[in-house]
Formats: sequence, C-alpha cells, structure tokens
Amino acid sequence: MSDKSESKIRARLWVDCALTADAELALNSADSHYVTTVMRLRAGDALVLFNGQDGEWLGKITSTGKCAVGLILNEQLREQQPEPDLWLAFAPVKGARIDFVAQKATELGVSRLLPVMTERTNVSRVNVARLQANAKEAAEQCERLVIPEVRETQTLTELISAWPVGRRLMFCDETLSGGPALEVLQQAAGDGGASFDNAFDHGPWAVLTGPEGGFSNQEHELLRAQDYALAVTLGPRLLRADTAALAALTLWQAVLGDWR
Amino acid sequence: MSDKSESKIRARLWVDCALTADAELALNSADSHYVTTVMRLRAGDALVLFNGQDGEWLGKITSTGKCAVGLILNEQLREQQPEPDLWLAFAPVKGARIDFVAQKATELGVSRLLPVMTERTNVSRVNVARLQANAKEAAEQCERLVIPEVRETQTLTELISAWPVGRRLMFCDETLSGGPALEVLQQAAGDGGASFDNAFDHGPWAVLTGPEGGFSNQEHELLRAQDYALAVTLGPRLLRADTAALAALTLWQAVLGDWR
Repeated sequence: MSDKSESKIRARLWVDCALTADAELALNSADSHYVTTVMRLRAGDALVLFNGQDGEWLGKITSTGKCAVGLILNEQLREQQPEPDLWLAFAPVKGARIDFVAQKATELGVSRLLPVMTERTNVSRVNVARLQANAKEAAEQCERLVIPEVRETQTLTELISAWPVGRRLMFCDETLSGGPALEVLQQAAGDGGASFDNAFDHGPWAVLTGPEGGFSNQEHELLRAQDYALAVTLGPRLLRADTAALAALTLWQAVLGDWR
Repeated sequence: MSDKSESKIRARLWVDCALTADAELALNSADSHYVTTVMRLRAGDALVLFNGQDGEWLGKITSTGKCAVGLILNEQLREQQPEPDLWLAFAPVKGARIDFVAQKATELGVSRLLPVMTERTNVSRVNVARLQANAKEAAEQCERLVIPEVRETQTLTELISAWPVGRRLMFCDETLSGGPALEVLQQAAGDGGASFDNAFDHGPWAVLTGPEGGFSNQEHELLRAQDYALAVTLGPRLLRADTAALAALTLWQAVLGDWR
C-alpha cells in the first residue's frame, strides 16, 4: 500500500458478498451513492471493505456510477478476528437516544442487540431496520470486522423463556441491591479460573438494562430467580437507561472482554 | 413526607440560593415557566431543591405565576454528600454529541468540565453556557447534589501549563501505546495504599480525551512528559471521542470513585 493510496482511504464499508483476492464486486445503490456523492471518490481511489467473515480488504474503484460502483480487491489488510460473544438486551428508549445506544454498543463491541419490552417501557414500537443501519454505520466507522445483529423486539418474559443454556446475564439493578458491577464481574472472572485464561474465553454473556422507570417488582423477581443472572449496581447516581447500558458494557469489556 | 406528596414529586431543581428550614424563596423565570407550564404544578404541589451546598430539600409551592413561583422549604431530604474530585477535559466534538458529553459526564459524576482545543480539534467555538445548561439539567434528573462547573475553552498547552499540583491525569491514547485502562487505574489505586482506604480518598484526578483524529505527535510528547499523566487504552476498536470519555469516566468511578 503506497503512501498515496493510504492517505486517500477514508471510506470503509460493510458489503454482503465474499471477499477474496482479485475478486470483482459491485456496491449496492446506497453505498454507491455514499461513495460517489458523499465521499466523492472516483475510479482509482481506494476503499476498505469487510463482510463479517473474510477479514478486511483493500479495494480499488474500477468504475463509478450513482447506482453501481465497481471494485476490485487488492489485498487483505486484516484477517477476521474472534470477538467476545456479548449481547446487549435493552428496554428501548425514545428518539435519538435509541440510535445512540445502537451506535455506542457497536463501538463497545456487542455481538447482538435485543430490544426488550418491559412493564414500564414507554416506547410502543422499535424500528429494527433503523437500529441495524445505525449498527452498520458505527461498525464501518469504528473499524470493527463484524456488525452486531439486531433482533426483533420481544418481551422480557419471552427473552427469559428462551434464554440459551450457558449464557450469563448481568442486569443493571437500579434499586442498588446488587453488588458493585466491577466486583461482581471480577468475581465472575475468578470463578472461570484456569479454564478461562484467554481473551473471549469467559463464555457467552449478556448485559440487560431496564427502562427509565426501572424493572417492576415482578420483573426483578423473574430475573433474580435465574441462576445465570447477576444483579449489579452502577454507582449512587441515577443513570439514564442509555448511560447505564454503555457503562455496563465498558466494565464488561474491561474485566472479561477484549480490553484486557 | 406523606404518600400523597411523594407520588407528586416529579420536579427537581437546582437553585442559586441558600436552603434552610422554613426558608421562603422564588424561582427564576425559566424555572417558574418549567414548573408551571411543563410540569403543570400548582400551589400546594411539592418540589425537590438543591443548590450544591445545603443538601436536598423538599419544598412546597405557595404561589404560582409564569415568572415567579414562590416556595417554602419543608424538610431536608438528604445532607450534602462529598463527591469525587474528577475533572473531564475533552476536545470538543460537533453538534448534539457535545451536549451528550456534558449530560453523560454529569451522570457519571464529574466535578468539572473543561473543553480543550487541540491541534486536530475540528470545532472552532464552544458554547459554554449551553454546556452548563446541559450539565444543570442532567444533575437535576440524575439526583446529583451538585452541578459540574463548565470552564471556558482553553488550549491543551494552557491546560498543561496551569495544571494543579497533585492532580493525576488519565489520558486516552488512541495509538494503543498505553496500558489497559482498568489495569492502569488499579495500579494507581494500589499505589495509594493504606492512606487511600476510603471512597474519594484517592485525591484529585482528571480524564482527558482527544478529538476524533487523536492527539498530534507533539501533544503526545507533551502529555507523556508530565509525571502526573498516565496513558491508557480503551480496547481494540476505534471509539468515537464521546464514547471514549464515557468509558474512561466509568472505569475511573468503578476503580477509584464512588461506585465501589
């Protein structure tokens, strides 16, 4: 990669096709518009591509057009890396803050986003496609090699009923009855013992955050009855739902994830 | 406090006057408008008040009017609590994301917000009054007893030139040459040893985050030359500037602050 091409790489795109040496491919119309009109790239310019499976590739634009930018792949820049298996299940919040949750959770490395309706959730409908678009854009910008998958909205009861065996759950308990999140996570890391020396080897996890009004008593009882669930507190101040999600994900990555 | 009044307490306001038993006071016009028009409170309704010094008080509205709501204080709900002495110095970001930094940093318990211009900062002017208004509103909502103070914008060189003796600085190093933030903070906590058993006793600290393009080489050298400065990394993904600030504050509170 010459200095010249390096200085030009500003666009980084997820694409839905296989990436192999010398492959030729065409961007879809939305990405073609972005590349030609927003980024103002032309034939000969470089692009970075990833698809969630084949690592990260350097491509060169061979032809442009608003609806079909053509590319040829040059070289693989990075191999696909394993990432922690961390879900974020969250009671949706209103307006721009739900976009924000999807963006920030992507930067913080979640593997799946699960909007969950709780008794006190004050949002009637979640635009899953919009959350997925936010996750895609954030993954492109933060140099991730995968995009978190956004699941259809479900109720908390449905989520717990179909909970996968072996996945642990840290839920943010606004009643302050859980332990400090850092201590609880470090305890959990210690429990893993010698079998969990390596990054990502703490097994599958999830973070669950409630709505602005908190979980109901029944929901607290449901969560506390699950042997895979750990209640944690995030300090003495009342955090908004989106802040709690980011703080919990940060602590998880620092103790059990790939920030070590 | 009766159940009836408790169920009505929805407004929580910072006021710029002394709070003592049986004191009578008048809200300013902005807060009066908020209380009567947005919250639709009337004479006899309850309000929670704080001023950053005298704890938290329950007040009752004695008279209303768009420009002058009158109150009488009933009882002190909480005494003023000490909070960690944690600054956030940050290269300003554009648009709604700078408001977001002020709001979230307030929820995460910072004592002071310092916008800092760096070489690659892509924002020409910071609206300090707007940041302060964001911090006030966030403090009112997150049940804090103080509002972080927002300082006038300064350059990084000015910030470092006037750095107070004894305040440690954790700066987020996007070049990945620092240690993992959790390890660095736990090492710093250990250094404090027996003299730092209590919450808030780790002395004054600051978190510093750079602009989207990172610190320049000269800025890195300047920061690394300060014996009070510690470089930390926040994982392998590229975090946006606002995400990095929240993640760093979260880890500080969990290890050295009042989340323990």
